[in-house]
Amino acid sequence: MGEVKNKKVVLKDYVIGLLKESDMDIVEGTITLKLPEGSNEILLKNLYLSCDPHMRNLMSNIQDPDESFVPYTPGSPLEGYGVAKVLESGHPDYKKGDLVWGFTKWEEYSLVPSSLIPFKIEHTDVPLSYYTGILGMQGITAYAGFFEVGLPKKGERVFVSAASGAVGQLVGQFAKLTGCYVVGSAGSKHKVDLLKNKFGFDDAFNYKEEPDLNAALKRCFPEGIDIYFENVGGKTLDAVLLNMRNHGRIVVCGMTSQYGRAQPEGVTNLTSLITKRIRMQAFLVTDYYPMYPKYLEYVLPKIKEGKIVYVEDIVEGLENGPAALVGLFSGRNVGKQVLLVAHE
Amino acid sequence: MGEVKNKKVVLKDYVIGLLKESDMDIVEGTITLKLPEGSNEILLKNLYLSCDPHMRNLMSNIQDPDESFVPYTPGSPLEGYGVAKVLESGHPDYKKGDLVWGFTKWEEYSLVPSSLIPFKIEHTDVPLSYYTGILGMQGITAYAGFFEVGLPKKGERVFVSAASGAVGQLVGQFAKLTGCYVVGSAGSKHKVDLLKNKFGFDDAFNYKEEPDLNAALKRCFPEGIDIYFENVGGKTLDAVLLNMRNHGRIVVCGMTSQYGRAQPEGVTNLTSLITKRIRMQAFLVTDYYPMYPKYLEYVLPKIKEGKIVYVEDIVEGLENGPAALVGLFSGRNVGKQVLLVAHE
Repeated sequence: MGEVKNKKVVLKDYVIGLLKESDMDIVEGTITLKLPEGSNEILLKNLYLSCDPHMRNLMSNIQDPDESFVPYTPGSPLEGYGVAKVLESGHPDYKKGDLVWGFTKWEEYSLVPSSLIPFKIEHTDVPLSYYTGILGMQGITAYAGFFEVGLPKKGERVFVSAASGAVGQLVGQFAKLTGCYVVGSAGSKHKVDLLKNKFGFDDAFNYKEEPDLNAALKRCFPEGIDIYFENVGGKTLDAVLLNMRNHGRIVVCGMTSQYGRAQPEGVTNLTSLITKRIRMQAFLVTDYYPMYPKYLEYVLPKIKEGKIVYVEDIVEGLENGPAALVGLFSGRNVGKQVLLVAHE
Repeated sequence: MGEVKNKKVVLKDYVIGLLKESDMDIVEGTITLKLPEGSNEILLKNLYLSCDPHMRNLMSNIQDPDESFVPYTPGSPLEGYGVAKVLESGHPDYKKGDLVWGFTKWEEYSLVPSSLIPFKIEHTDVPLSYYTGILGMQGITAYAGFFEVGLPKKGERVFVSAASGAVGQLVGQFAKLTGCYVVGSAGSKHKVDLLKNKFGFDDAFNYKEEPDLNAALKRCFPEGIDIYFENVGGKTLDAVLLNMRNHGRIVVCGMTSQYGRAQPEGVTNLTSLITKRIRMQAFLVTDYYPMYPKYLEYVLPKIKEGKIVYVEDIVEGLENGPAALVGLFSGRNVGKQVLLVAHE
């Protein structure tokens, strides 16, 4: 295997404000499909790429003293989660032909350092694209966030924002399977219908059509909220704080509405934390990766028996990546946004 | 014992904005020093009253749907924590002459419902006034908040705001006894000196003289903060959020700077919770009252051996109560503000 073309989606420059398609470029590179002698890297053929809101954060020129995250380098391809096939491996745990999910780059072929070990895909009787979401990072995110951080009890009242997104739709279904009352918010009538009719939420509302979020929450939760699964931040969080119950928990998974803002919105109702003894806890999914086998045991049978449904929005072709990514922030996608790079 | 005069500090009307002395009145009432036949109340002679920032919250006309707190009634005396002597008791657990601490009212004599059972004072070889603070509600607050909510480990870096206050000075000393590095902020040079020279903080700063709180925190915590004991909220919290370490904990005890504001300040850096996986947890001390005996076992020997010091600012006379209370919000008091109503 010699040198082949390698199409990439690269970041042109650090992004300020709302992400636009023109912030990214499609570039034709080349790659030699052979590992250098003695390399312990892994050479991947990318099949599916995951389009995730947190990628926007990595496009800002943020200097993080802890280096708990490193921004993308302008001129280089975007990075994120994906499903790929191993073409060559310098690491004993992987061999040619293995299917894996994990860290990869937005291009056709990627050399990935062995320090970023991907997960091997063992179950292929489900769609491979699921490993960019329900069976990948976002599945463990929903599972660990809801169960390990939220500590739900049967009968509790759960609110999920961005509820039709990859994580939200799962949290809602996990909550229903736990015997909770679940309400979700989303940004279109179609998504609200999906929440109520497909994902089994007890109720849902379109936040864009609610002039008063506080009133909407009071309507859906006359007795208050026990667990808020936080995906958006800002005004929604402020309204939720007024509607929490004593000993409530706010599981902070993301704050999409704040990403890329030069000046984030101020949250003014934090004193409610005190009177209600609230625990507001953020988490990073990587801390919970050791739970992955346990999660698969929980979720795989439920997918196969139809007890959990999962909706994806699959766009084909790397050249359509920028539009797919931008669409996340206008709420254009319905369900998990996936980019199909190549068929197996 | 017949009818006697009963001086009271009453709230004139609900308060908007900054508390002023003129929001309160000194009223001469009368009381019959005898329990009604068959009453199960307790008749108290108040000795010391505790001046606490949270009292300001109860002066606003806030309708709390959960009734997790009930505002004061205009025209009635203020309520709060205090040390008192039992004059008559309709409850079998208390008898005439017992010294107690707990809920009482801002007046010379109070009838207290038996449902608000006070704590009996068993150890009188320490100043009685200590039961309004270090040996009372604020002692358990500092102990439960720091140890049970903060879960400190030896060597961790702890920041305390309002550090010379009743709770703050204890948290700092508990942290030092745990082997932590401790920095406090306060609002005057005198208080900063007290923190460094009397309470043994490793460092301290006067927040009023720091044009940039973020820079002040970076100077004191070049490697970041593991535990923030939150007493003030607002701008301080916003600066702290930028300086937390991974897996940091924010123990939310109070947000004094926000009490009584018509429009609370917006906190803009909450997305830092996510990248640093922070747990921000509020608590109410009443949930931890069962730990009181355990706390006394911890703290009493340390007080007697001089391993913990405690500073009080005692003002004498109910008529000086309004000024003492108002002074809390301008930072006039040094150490725990106590109002001496009567000698035993």
